[in-house]
Amino acid sequence: MRIEIICTGDEVLSGKTVNTNYSHMAARLQEAGLDVVWGTTVGDDRDSLIEAFKLAAVRADAVIVNGGLGPTVDDLSQEVAAEAAGVSLELNEGWLENIEGFYAARGREMPPNNRKQAMLPVGSEFIDNPIGTACGFAIDIGNARFLFTPGVPREIHLMLQAEIIPRLLSLSGVQHVVRVKRFHSFGLGESRVDNMLSGVEDLASSGEVKLGFQAHYPQLETKLFARGADEADITRMLAPVETAVREQLGSYLLCEGDETLEGSIIARLREAAGTLAVAECGTDGQVASRLVGADREGEVFRRGTLGPSVQALGQAVGGEDVSLPDAAGAAVLAEAVRKSARTTHGLCVLVGPGDTPSEGLVFIGLSRAGETTLTRAACIVGGPERVRGGGIEMGLDCVRRLLSGLSIDDPVDFEKQT
Amino acid sequence: MRIEIICTGDEVLSGKTVNTNYSHMAARLQEAGLDVVWGTTVGDDRDSLIEAFKLAAVRADAVIVNGGLGPTVDDLSQEVAAEAAGVSLELNEGWLENIEGFYAARGREMPPNNRKQAMLPVGSEFIDNPIGTACGFAIDIGNARFLFTPGVPREIHLMLQAEIIPRLLSLSGVQHVVRVKRFHSFGLGESRVDNMLSGVEDLASSGEVKLGFQAHYPQLETKLFARGADEADITRMLAPVETAVREQLGSYLLCEGDETLEGSIIARLREAAGTLAVAECGTDGQVASRLVGADREGEVFRRGTLGPSVQALGQAVGGEDVSLPDAAGAAVLAEAVRKSARTTHGLCVLVGPGDTPSEGLVFIGLSRAGETTLTRAACIVGGPERVRGGGIEMGLDCVRRLLSGLSIDDPVDFEKQT
Repeated sequence: MRIEIICTGDEVLSGKTVNTNYSHMAARLQEAGLDVVWGTTVGDDRDSLIEAFKLAAVRADAVIVNGGLGPTVDDLSQEVAAEAAGVSLELNEGWLENIEGFYAARGREMPPNNRKQAMLPVGSEFIDNPIGTACGFAIDIGNARFLFTPGVPREIHLMLQAEIIPRLLSLSGVQHVVRVKRFHSFGLGESRVDNMLSGVEDLASSGEVKLGFQAHYPQLETKLFARGADEADITRMLAPVETAVREQLGSYLLCEGDETLEGSIIARLREAAGTLAVAECGTDGQVASRLVGADREGEVFRRGTLGPSVQALGQAVGGEDVSLPDAAGAAVLAEAVRKSARTTHGLCVLVGPGDTPSEGLVFIGLSRAGETTLTRAACIVGGPERVRGGGIEMGLDCVRRLLSGLSIDDPVDFEKQT
Repeated sequence: MRIEIICTGDEVLSGKTVNTNYSHMAARLQEAGLDVVWGTTVGDDRDSLIEAFKLAAVRADAVIVNGGLGPTVDDLSQEVAAEAAGVSLELNEGWLENIEGFYAARGREMPPNNRKQAMLPVGSEFIDNPIGTACGFAIDIGNARFLFTPGVPREIHLMLQAEIIPRLLSLSGVQHVVRVKRFHSFGLGESRVDNMLSGVEDLASSGEVKLGFQAHYPQLETKLFARGADEADITRMLAPVETAVREQLGSYLLCEGDETLEGSIIARLREAAGTLAVAECGTDGQVASRLVGADREGEVFRRGTLGPSVQALGQAVGGEDVSLPDAAGAAVLAEAVRKSARTTHGLCVLVGPGDTPSEGLVFIGLSRAGETTLTRAACIVGGPERVRGGGIEMGLDCVRRLLSGLSIDDPVDFEKQT
């Protein structure tokens, strides 16, 4: 089935708004086994909309139109849809009541121009929007089924999964179920993982499994796209493939699915009644920032200290005299921040320049009460932003490794091998 | 002149890559007085490319094609351009030497498939790429001038300004010069500023000035698009408009052009030989993060402390006993962090929940040696992310206001008026 996405609106056309609705829709469709073959962007302009609809009606089987369902005069989608389909607009009484109720619940009266949002082309199929005043609808134009959706991101995100994808799957005659399984790793490059996992899809007991990657430096996301008869079938076919991926990624596997590295650190420390304090330099405070974002209750993460130099950091964590950014300094600072914050664990991450502008040095210290302080040093290859990102991730990863009983010394692909 | 942008590549079509090249190009073109009227996205697919070129050749006067100039087999732009223009490809000797030199400078030999990047349609105009191996080129197809550009963001960013926009301006027969002047403010909503600045364009002494806005909550960007005979003309015509905008934005104007709020704070403190320490809670450490990013030398920003609660923060900044997140607590913490870090200025920003889930409380303390500590309290309207963003900005803005001799109490549009 050939699918086209038409994005409408002057804000998107003029580049004022980055078109994340498009990438979101296309990516979710692909995960569902549906391929987008054409994308069109036009403004809030009647002639352009008519032309775009006519072209898509010939070359596509299904068309998602995004935007233009608002209450103002420049929102033209319903009108142009009706014109292109050769029908008139009629009031959808049920949806008008819904909009009135939406305003009433907020203690306001519906402005008269919102009535426009309940005018749908005669013969169109209503598509519910549970969180906004712009409903969707579907209608045939030419050879294609057109599905109209609102431009507000959280509305289209919700409607895409609940309403649009099921309709497209049904249109395409697809009988199968699809699932995407995600693995997040740190330290292995995409091409290396691609090699390591070569042939892993063939382990699927039945159906079809495809392997894909998405690099979000410093993390790599490995995806398994599975297609099977039903959920139980997918679970069965994926099991041996998942096991093989876990084995291959080994100690570099951070977490799976919707889990995050920082979330899993907080969860493990919470289980063990542990607490954590951080001292950092050259990281823009992002080690503490990531952890506090995963621990809104503040049970585990107890303190973050950011300094412009190791000397300033030494003063901040209890007057320690640290003069050099090195592994020994990171150890002293990790211990000092743990003691001054009275936590079970202390982490120090120091990121600074290297011998050349295209590399940087990272020193990590990890302190626990009554145990030897661990350290890790690395020379990360790349410009300052890349070194900073790699250092932040490596600092967090060392905590995960410690809590999982893994070595913190496994080399990563981004560091210079010595 | 009708301009179309065609973005090519499976990564963009499938949504794996968010299409920031499109928004960048369209926005820069608009700033230059050039409007994009149509956007097309297609994959690395010969038939789709041919079809897209044919359609654009009819409906547009100028077409920017982005991507598909790489060395691999799925990069098809030159081939399809030649086919659509009805010509063959020929080797551009000069560019081949350039690519070989590019590799030689890196101590490597050019892989054979890079030769493909020097094959251009016969009769096309060469467009230089000073930082990559994919050159651009221009050729007429149908009624339109097609300009081919590489997909690597930093390459297209550079070439757009240096090569593409000048060619489009010349094609459009435009004789004028354009300039965009930017103002950044915090605390006034877009519709309010739009009202305040109504008619301001008419103050231009000659030529044409247009007003535009871009909201990046919590900041608002006000733009003046000016069009004149030459640079001196633009400077002259903009002067009275700029003065009026500055007067209207008044104490809410943060900075102009490429300046940032945090950058101007650091610059002012540096001039005054001042130093700053920060204690924060509920901000994900972003107050310190913003400041340290604007002070890579670490001359001014001396310490950031992040705690999960005011109690933990009190312990961290010298054992202060603070029990409540309120203005008095923020004052105590601002003073304590200033004293323990031995800085001239101390800032405390506390962000926490409000009485309802759709609002949050912000408390700010500002301490200076030998002066009364200032405080600011606000109830910001919105969900947690919005409250956090508003609180971070308000904290930084209070420092700017103090350093500029302005009141820190001017109300902002995002806070609940009491």
